[in-house]
Amino acid sequence: MADQVTTVRNKQVILVSYPKGWVTEDNFRIEETDMHLSLKPGCGHVLLQTLWASVDPYLRGRMQESKGGLYAQPFQLGKPIVVRAVSKVIASDNQEFHVGEFVAGPISLGEYALVEGGQGLWKVDPNLAPLSYYLGLLGAPGLTAWVGLNLIGEPKRGDELFVSAAAGAVGLVVGQLAKLKGCRVVGSVGSDDKFWQCTFLLSREGYDSIQHLDRYFPQGIDIYFENVGGRMLEAVLNHINLNGRIPVCGMLSGYNQEWTEREGVRNLMNIVGKCVKMQGFIVSHHFYHLPTYIQEVAGYLKEGKIKYKEHVTEGLENFAKSFIGMLKGENFGKAVVHVSDP
Amino acid sequence: MADQVTTVRNKQVILVSYPKGWVTEDNFRIEETDMHLSLKPGCGHVLLQTLWASVDPYLRGRMQESKGGLYAQPFQLGKPIVVRAVSKVIASDNQEFHVGEFVAGPISLGEYALVEGGQGLWKVDPNLAPLSYYLGLLGAPGLTAWVGLNLIGEPKRGDELFVSAAAGAVGLVVGQLAKLKGCRVVGSVGSDDKFWQCTFLLSREGYDSIQHLDRYFPQGIDIYFENVGGRMLEAVLNHINLNGRIPVCGMLSGYNQEWTEREGVRNLMNIVGKCVKMQGFIVSHHFYHLPTYIQEVAGYLKEGKIKYKEHVTEGLENFAKSFIGMLKGENFGKAVVHVSDP
Repeated sequence: MADQVTTVRNKQVILVSYPKGWVTEDNFRIEETDMHLSLKPGCGHVLLQTLWASVDPYLRGRMQESKGGLYAQPFQLGKPIVVRAVSKVIASDNQEFHVGEFVAGPISLGEYALVEGGQGLWKVDPNLAPLSYYLGLLGAPGLTAWVGLNLIGEPKRGDELFVSAAAGAVGLVVGQLAKLKGCRVVGSVGSDDKFWQCTFLLSREGYDSIQHLDRYFPQGIDIYFENVGGRMLEAVLNHINLNGRIPVCGMLSGYNQEWTEREGVRNLMNIVGKCVKMQGFIVSHHFYHLPTYIQEVAGYLKEGKIKYKEHVTEGLENFAKSFIGMLKGENFGKAVVHVSDP
Repeated sequence: MADQVTTVRNKQVILVSYPKGWVTEDNFRIEETDMHLSLKPGCGHVLLQTLWASVDPYLRGRMQESKGGLYAQPFQLGKPIVVRAVSKVIASDNQEFHVGEFVAGPISLGEYALVEGGQGLWKVDPNLAPLSYYLGLLGAPGLTAWVGLNLIGEPKRGDELFVSAAAGAVGLVVGQLAKLKGCRVVGSVGSDDKFWQCTFLLSREGYDSIQHLDRYFPQGIDIYFENVGGRMLEAVLNHINLNGRIPVCGMLSGYNQEWTEREGVRNLMNIVGKCVKMQGFIVSHHFYHLPTYIQEVAGYLKEGKIKYKEHVTEGLENFAKSFIGMLKGENFGKAVVHVSDP
């Protein structure tokens, strides 16, 4: 394609306003512009055709003026948002990436994207798993699960592990990796703070079933993989065991509120009484573990020891809808948007 | 004394009711009974004359029916409370402890105390420091500072350290040990949540002075030694640096409230954004470090590199008054009650 044309129409997803509270579709618009497909030589740039775009909770944190303790710079208004994607290289001035190869990494969200200097891109193997898996099981969410579980959670055979947002991109991996490590796993699913309403995942995916913490953890909780925060964290802290570990991956329940409006956690004193370690982490600091992680999980995939589930939305123009649904917990599995075929 | 009499009048401090909210003197009474000073042979019991009794915040946690996440069993109503004390051995059926020796350890609070099997007692050296120091600088509070600072805080030269309740038994040691490790130290003092009102300690004891976190930590906070909780913790989480460490020793601000009534912490999300490790601990799990710790600090004492301050109340009958004052933050330095002379 890059050989025949020098300009292409490119649809992009533009952030037009910072959401107040819940995100709405009005916060975004689709903008169509001409994009030149020729690359200035000597800059190491790479031109990509977007195949799959990743829909992740952390994006919400970038959609606000003040950082509010979140980890990345705010998105600029009037510009495309930046998301992780799987793409096909359609033009390249970079020695590491060649036309026709598949890559994953952050892009300015559009049907096509220019990545300056190829920054943040890594090559992915289409024979190992479906390409979209590099946004989930074999990408940042999977590695997030692995880092939180292994480096902070320190699971031991027989440990009682609880994971919230268990049907999400990260939670699905946490639960399965923990079971492979010999933990007893219970997960909660459901949107925001409607914690206990869905039980299907837990039987369908082979987790133990769940209703109330005291009923499902008569022995207490050794590891809580934290995705939700607020009242859920309070409930866990009232059931945590001595020397419990809480890898803190995210706190979804508060993402649509200013920090001062969030429900505070009132029983942090239990951290002292139970000698709990609660530790936050950002997966990008641990990307150097990605090859090790992919090798481990690819093995499990081949042996049928791990499964993954995706919630696919068709078309770039539905990205906002998918994102809002994911924040409301309407997805079951990793939320991805299918943009084009290779 | 034990040689001449077989019975002695013994005043004890009895808990008569669990405080609702703030502790009052009515929650206690002084009871005087006869105590036999003869020991049944073969049991390893030790009879002690109390010299100094320790007044510590953690006692509040034992003065309630439900444990509420706190770490020790509730005190029984109608019985003496159990506190750490420095005592003189006046009779012993235990090979480890001899009449005339000085010991520290938990006792049922009275002028005299029987310690079954000598449990929890350890010998102290009256030549190293004033005996009362074994309840503070050279005892559990000092070791608490050392464990939290070194094992969880992992101080490095140049780290920015903030300690709350800096004029308390633990805080005084944290600040000085951290300075010896090359940290820049700022402490807050004042009762409960009146965080910023007292600055005298900080200059008097050689700490850096304090008023507001943003003013005193333009470079952010690397280590927060947590004694207070609530709004103080929130303020710190808004100023914490990447990879910050928060050893959680206690959360004084909530000790007089049920957990559901405490002010919740609303910005825990910063733990993720800043990859913070927040870890609770209980000093009794680390008592095996006590000899190492005492050796280290005795050295500093001798060289004049560390100072300590005590807030002394005279007489067992004033224990409740001293305890209440300490909870209100009226003490400057380690609160101790002087019960008798050797």
